[in-house]
Amino acid sequence: MDQRVSLITLGVADVERARDFYAALGWHGQTVEQTVFFQAGGLAVVLWSRAALAADAGLPDAGVPDHGLPDDGARDDGARAVAAGGVALAHNVRSAREVDALVADWAGAGGAVVREPVRTVYGGYAGYVADPDGHLWEIAYNPGFPLADDGSLTVPDLGPPTGG
Amino acid sequence: MDQRVSLITLGVADVERARDFYAALGWHGQTVEQTVFFQAGGLAVVLWSRAALAADAGLPDAGVPDHGLPDDGARDDGARAVAAGGVALAHNVRSAREVDALVADWAGAGGAVVREPVRTVYGGYAGYVADPDGHLWEIAYNPGFPLADDGSLTVPDLGPPTGG
Repeated sequence: MDQRVSLITLGVADVERARDFYAALGWHGQTVEQTVFFQAGGLAVVLWSRAALAADAGLPDAGVPDHGLPDDGARDDGARAVAAGGVALAHNVRSAREVDALVADWAGAGGAVVREPVRTVYGGYAGYVADPDGHLWEIAYNPGFPLADDGSLTVPDLGPPTGG
Repeated sequence: MDQRVSLITLGVADVERARDFYAALGWHGQTVEQTVFFQAGGLAVVLWSRAALAADAGLPDAGVPDHGLPDDGARDDGARAVAAGGVALAHNVRSAREVDALVADWAGAGGAVVREPVRTVYGGYAGYVADPDGHLWEIAYNPGFPLADDGSLTVPDLGPPTGG
């Protein structure tokens, strides 16, 4: 697994409120289907409904996951909550095959497979894993967000805002 | 505020366990004073005690903060927990003066000043703020981690491991 982060998704209660807040700090992003993408160096900071993020990962929002994460005693409610829609890091790769390989690597290293990889609505393929502290990572192949040779991600022109 | 993230700090229950987990995935980092720094593109992924992170921000670990964060009804326990030691993003700047200016900008935009900026043990100056969903950002000046012209951060050679 390369040492890089492709996206940082911040789960928010109200996408418009969150976008306006970062806009007031001078950030410029693109909004598509209630999701805001800010280019930030070689990655994207994303604002997305916390409930949608939790649902996408198959986790209850802001609750204690009752499945998917290993229960080893060291993880407490705070760490569980991390995985329940608060923040997700994404590690994007260049093919569906690489997604499967990396998810298997995580499982082999003692991580949790939170949601097995599936085809995504955007024509990609992605799954969710968690580290031993419950930090949620999406392992994703997204053909619409190409990666540079050095692994950096550039948000493409997403066109006019859609979906609200 | 430039659109960039300098560090992603993952609060963990056991730094050594977390480091070993990411090492098993092939990540190489530097460990100094129970903190692990992984270079990841133009930023650093950092593993640090969740309790230490919470204490540094003046927040109870994995609990519901009883101060520092605005209570606007939209924030629920899940979002509060995000700020309570789970994950922190850092935005590094080039001077203490810039830290003060940015923290003031956050307050002006409706963010919370979680911990006013103070001198740090590493010879820098940093404060903590939170966005309307409780996502914790550290605004920091760290002369030991210089920023490139494009704002990217490179972890310097931190020498031999210290402090455990």
